[in-house]
Amino acid sequence: MSKPIREADLVPRLEGQGYSAEALAERRRWIEERTGARLAHAGSSTIPAEEMRGNIENPIGAAQVPLGLAGPLLVQGEHAQGVFYVPLATTEGALVRSYERGAAAITRAGGATARVLTDENRVSPVFLFENAAEAAAFSRRLPELFEGLKAEADATTRHGRLLRVEPLPLGREVVVHFAWWTADAHGMNMIVKGTDQACRWLVEQGHAPRYYVFSGAESEKRASGALFAGGKGKKVTADVRLPARLVRAYFHTTPAGLADVWRRTVLGHLQAGTTGYNGHIANGLTALFIACGQDVANIANSAVGITSFEVVEGGDLYASVTLPSLTVATVGGGTGLGTGRECLEMLGCFGAGKAPKLAEIAAALVLGGELSFGAAIASGEFVAAHETYGRNRI
Amino acid sequence: MSKPIREADLVPRLEGQGYSAEALAERRRWIEERTGARLAHAGSSTIPAEEMRGNIENPIGAAQVPLGLAGPLLVQGEHAQGVFYVPLATTEGALVRSYERGAAAITRAGGATARVLTDENRVSPVFLFENAAEAAAFSRRLPELFEGLKAEADATTRHGRLLRVEPLPLGREVVVHFAWWTADAHGMNMIVKGTDQACRWLVEQGHAPRYYVFSGAESEKRASGALFAGGKGKKVTADVRLPARLVRAYFHTTPAGLADVWRRTVLGHLQAGTTGYNGHIANGLTALFIACGQDVANIANSAVGITSFEVVEGGDLYASVTLPSLTVATVGGGTGLGTGRECLEMLGCFGAGKAPKLAEIAAALVLGGELSFGAAIASGEFVAAHETYGRNRI
Amino acid sequence: MSKPIREADLVPRLEGQGYSAEALAERRRWIEERTGARLAHAGSSTIPAEEMRGNIENPIGAAQVPLGLAGPLLVQGEHAQGVFYVPLATTEGALVRSYERGAAAITRAGGATARVLTDENRVSPVFLFENAAEAAAFSRRLPELFEGLKAEADATTRHGRLLRVEPLPLGREVVVHFAWWTADAHGMNMIVKGTDQACRWLVEQGHAPRYYVFSGAESEKRASGALFAGGKGKKVTADVRLPARLVRAYFHTTPAGLADVWRRTVLGHLQAGTTGYNGHIANGLTALFIACGQDVANIANSAVGITSFEVVEGGDLYASVTLPSLTVATVGGGTGLGTGRECLEMLGCFGAGKAPKLAEIAAALVLGGELSFGAAIASGEFVAAHETYGRNRI
Amino acid sequence: MSKPIREADLVPRLEGQGYSAEALAERRRWIEERTGARLAHAGSSTIPAEEMRGNIENPIGAAQVPLGLAGPLLVQGEHAQGVFYVPLATTEGALVRSYERGAAAITRAGGATARVLTDENRVSPVFLFENAAEAAAFSRRLPELFEGLKAEADATTRHGRLLRVEPLPLGREVVVHFAWWTADAHGMNMIVKGTDQACRWLVEQGHAPRYYVFSGAESEKRASGALFAGGKGKKVTADVRLPARLVRAYFHTTPAGLADVWRRTVLGHLQAGTTGYNGHIANGLTALFIACGQDVANIANSAVGITSFEVVEGGDLYASVTLPSLTVATVGGGTGLGTGRECLEMLGCFGAGKAPKLAEIAAALVLGGELSFGAAIASGEFVAAHETYGRNRI
Repeated sequence: MSKPIREADLVPRLEGQGYSAEALAERRRWIEERTGARLAHAGSSTIPAEEMRGNIENPIGAAQVPLGLAGPLLVQGEHAQGVFYVPLATTEGALVRSYERGAAAITRAGGATARVLTDENRVSPVFLFENAAEAAAFSRRLPELFEGLKAEADATTRHGRLLRVEPLPLGREVVVHFAWWTADAHGMNMIVKGTDQACRWLVEQGHAPRYYVFSGAESEKRASGALFAGGKGKKVTADVRLPARLVRAYFHTTPAGLADVWRRTVLGHLQAGTTGYNGHIANGLTALFIACGQDVANIANSAVGITSFEVVEGGDLYASVTLPSLTVATVGGGTGLGTGRECLEMLGCFGAGKAPKLAEIAAALVLGGELSFGAAIASGEFVAAHETYGRNRI
Repeated sequence: MSKPIREADLVPRLEGQGYSAEALAERRRWIEERTGARLAHAGSSTIPAEEMRGNIENPIGAAQVPLGLAGPLLVQGEHAQGVFYVPLATTEGALVRSYERGAAAITRAGGATARVLTDENRVSPVFLFENAAEAAAFSRRLPELFEGLKAEADATTRHGRLLRVEPLPLGREVVVHFAWWTADAHGMNMIVKGTDQACRWLVEQGHAPRYYVFSGAESEKRASGALFAGGKGKKVTADVRLPARLVRAYFHTTPAGLADVWRRTVLGHLQAGTTGYNGHIANGLTALFIACGQDVANIANSAVGITSFEVVEGGDLYASVTLPSLTVATVGGGTGLGTGRECLEMLGCFGAGKAPKLAEIAAALVLGGELSFGAAIASGEFVAAHETYGRNRI
Repeated sequence: MSKPIREADLVPRLEGQGYSAEALAERRRWIEERTGARLAHAGSSTIPAEEMRGNIENPIGAAQVPLGLAGPLLVQGEHAQGVFYVPLATTEGALVRSYERGAAAITRAGGATARVLTDENRVSPVFLFENAAEAAAFSRRLPELFEGLKAEADATTRHGRLLRVEPLPLGREVVVHFAWWTADAHGMNMIVKGTDQACRWLVEQGHAPRYYVFSGAESEKRASGALFAGGKGKKVTADVRLPARLVRAYFHTTPAGLADVWRRTVLGHLQAGTTGYNGHIANGLTALFIACGQDVANIANSAVGITSFEVVEGGDLYASVTLPSLTVATVGGGTGLGTGRECLEMLGCFGAGKAPKLAEIAAALVLGGELSFGAAIASGEFVAAHETYGRNRI
Repeated sequence: MSKPIREADLVPRLEGQGYSAEALAERRRWIEERTGARLAHAGSSTIPAEEMRGNIENPIGAAQVPLGLAGPLLVQGEHAQGVFYVPLATTEGALVRSYERGAAAITRAGGATARVLTDENRVSPVFLFENAAEAAAFSRRLPELFEGLKAEADATTRHGRLLRVEPLPLGREVVVHFAWWTADAHGMNMIVKGTDQACRWLVEQGHAPRYYVFSGAESEKRASGALFAGGKGKKVTADVRLPARLVRAYFHTTPAGLADVWRRTVLGHLQAGTTGYNGHIANGLTALFIACGQDVANIANSAVGITSFEVVEGGDLYASVTLPSLTVATVGGGTGLGTGRECLEMLGCFGAGKAPKLAEIAAALVLGGELSFGAAIASGEFVAAHETYGRNRI
């Protein structure tokens, strides 16, 4: 059944890997001929072709995702302070309206408080030993090796720095969390490189026979219970206290109504074995990530979060959302490309020193979305809202 | 602290909710003035403004995400048969190259077999009763109410149909899975509407005092263990048998090397309490979803999957990937908009009757990515590959 | 390093596997000589030695666990109706007092309602195929094979019967849940035998090349999210409505106090990635299982449960507990041995037809324990209670 | 419906809470009259009645569980060295034989290596603040409060000591792990008391307004993903390398056969959303716990573990088991009572300084059980073994 792939069947790489406008056009023609599809929209990318180098291979243009604004969103953070209008890229009708409603209610109530609680990233290689005794010995010896490890690791980067290592022995294997500070970058490439260098050093020095640079225990781009302990991106929280009259005015329900939805749906999540609990954090975060040039696949870990609603003294609503593993960046990756950069600039979040600010805005945004979604359930208006704003598709 | 929001601080809705090209431009000017950002790229959207109605509110243009091609990918499915070139939208350098490598190896080996195992979607409302006795009685009575429920539910849609209902009683509450067939649409709006109508009927007929249309147990846009039992989108699998020489040629490792990475990283995932096990399914799926106009937030459930590598008779590699909750659509949502439609057409997957085909291609694509990622770990080339193709960002 | 084990170093099996009183004594002397321990208590077993055959090998006597009574516990079930005094075997001081307090409060409030929601058990073999296509074909063919399977399976037992089979394909493997009704036995031996016979038949008939009789997906004696869907033992629930004055009188707190503990500790469980949510279900169930001759290792699945507290109209407390996977028996296993039988008789639960009754009592008991534990947290009396009743051990 | 409970309906407490032999007898007569049950076996307890004080309330005697021996088990630990015969209390036929087989094979291969990797216990109270800003501030201030906390906590006990505190902020709440060293006791009563004292001090000093001493995040007596990070009891591992000929001789299968069972059943566990992966750890640990006077409800956390089988160079089998949360004690609780003490003495594990030794023996025992169980699946002999040794109950 197996036969060689003809050169003609490979996607054309073209000169210099093909990052000129002409190369993109040639590749588009190539695929149009093969498939009959016409790529007028895809070819209308305004990102200078050469700028795509390092972000994508075999480029043919850009995908376009409708972009809208949700706001005003008043944030009372340590890094983000003031009113924001949040760019969201999505094709799900009613999503922007829902987040806008939540943002407005929060703003009306004086804003959402937001805090970055921990801020680091990790790579978790696994070291393989002859037996459990050697693995245990390595785990115990690791603290005294830290200075050497750190010297090797930090030498690979001007921006990140290794904070600590934590061994997780299991039989004859030892997973080691390498915890890094990555400044305003997501930084996975950076810290994988530094971690790999440190691992090589351990092998060269005879401390371990071999390793794989990923073990899966890092939980990069996956949902896991381990995310709640922090360490994979920023742990950030946002909260607000909403007077009952605002809950009624904006959400057509009561604080008790929202608290009741919360408790019932917590039970639903527990029965499903969900990682965490929330209404629809994935919706707002994904739209924010696409808009702001983030690594969207990190939604898998970033959308794990815990939302809380309760009635407090005076009959007001207290609401919070905590994202234990928000991986956002304001430098590197897609943050400098076309619309990504524009959207970050809209938030005053482009470039160095801005990642914590973006994290606080994201948490406040998501808080608004949780309120709005919960209210749609509580008030029974969910279907009506989607009838009004969504496409009556079918 | 709280004061009214001034009209001027609201995002301009403009006439008819503002879906003309002028409305988008006006909204862009409004936000540019407020923030100082310049939205040249965002304003270069080629999606006709009016077509965004139903997909987004407060539109200002479109986000652009670099789009590349991975292929050839030979798929031996029941719906997808032949060679495909898969459009991927991402800003993560090396991702397309990684999936391309996997696709080529699969193709060289005769293609990936793919199967859609189950195909449905669900909404899981929760009904609230006075006490556990009444809740239990309702659960037991539900089978005999099915015909009535189905009549109410099916009357709300021309495309979906209610397949069955499954009660999950818990104390005085009963979550009920409403399982639907949704044809080629993701269909959440459709089936929420139908389910809501059936719920109202239950209340009107006196079978239940009240309900919330979502309980969280449906696991829409969230990772959960319950996804593995199926019922939230398509359950799809793909596999391939790779001769050892192809593993060496394409991946610079051996079948035993990949099997070893598999077993070590399974242990890492187990320790992290991950939902499922895989290398980086989120990467390829997210890029495919953005390209093809899918609801990208569904990555939260779709990227939950289980990858398997093993050495088989003859020393070959057997590899499979199973996605228990792939929510893809070829009609509705963003599938008809600009680049989304173009990318679906590139795959021969636009329109009615094509969703199972898209699901098979997605599974085969992901299989390639799993092979390539695993191999990068096994061979120790992960860092080098990202040095070559990724942006040396920092 | 390896050398043969001398005959003298093996535990003496003795004649007929050594189930006479003399054999037990001889084995005790043997181990006493080797270890210097004196086994006066262990040798005081009153279980006739020969009756241990089939329940244990290499017997030397019996372990003794202190046995106490918690009650009165008024149960309003479908199978259990009236007041019960529940035997609990434990060495944890304050445990019986805690459950007694909960039972008394429930009784004072008119009793706990209890319902068995589903009642079955399962074995989940995994079948191995050449590739995913064959695995998918087998999954699809399974419904039409059911009659044949059932005939094979049911022929192996006079008591159980196969209810249905549910395939879970994954790559080239197919896990199949064999769902059985097991009458009043736990029945694992029975249904493993029947399932194995059905699997052999499938292989003989050429439907599958090979299988393992356990896949792990059955979740026997392990905690898993899959338990909440039911199918591994009895799913049972109990609830009660407690007037605020009884909450104060018995628990020194308020309905709002208990509801507050509930919501805070739910958040704690979510962060830990716990399977389910409850206060200390494992405590009461374990003590009940040891007392009543149950298979105590089944605590691993049985103690997975969800507790709920809420304030309802009138300011009363509503409390429920749901155990999705309670594996209790009133025939077979250790139910007929010495104290096991006596304790079952104390509850009117010995023998055929009584397992659902035992399940209802267990759920009501656990509900009392949850109330008492939650109250100890809410009132801040937890430490004081353990000072009073627990051993000031160290 | 509610009416007072008559004094006569309460379990008689009797003088001094009723811990004399006469009191037990009187209570037995009382329950016999009420229920018609005869408690000859339960009344044959040889534990001096007064010694039950602090371990149980309302005592009526003792439950008897058949006790058998599994061994020889050769352990090469740091604390346990030599051959052990392990007392197991169970009513599940074939269990002792299965563990005996595994122990013998391990012994024949030169013994199991065992290591205690971490050794601590924790209580995780939750502190409640006005809002997220105050909660974050508390989390950040915690390190500087540690000395004060430790002084308060350590003053409550002569045996334990507080090692560190770790905050987990979430919205306006902060769970704090209080990590303790508890010497040879399980120590929950001890460390809850010490933690409670430290919490009171925090409130008195104005650092926090209020708290609950348990948040659920401690994972005491429950299965959770968080257990794999350690901190709840002892993390212990055991491994062995078995030559292929011993695998054949003892287990009637091959190293490859066991490795195959491992990989298939890992997939089954992943689909079930199980916490960890293992064959039947709960079986052996439960039997050991009942025999040795442990707190058996801790099976819920202790039986969470990860087993690993693989074929290594030379075609041998490598097997390991890791228990991340083994809560065993050799002082306090039921360790000094009758059979509990005798069984600990049989293992040379009674009293101070012996808990790590018991942990190593437990891990080695469980390793044997995993091998034997896996082999029964691999060889297809599972059903036959239970036919031979189990009770043909029904």
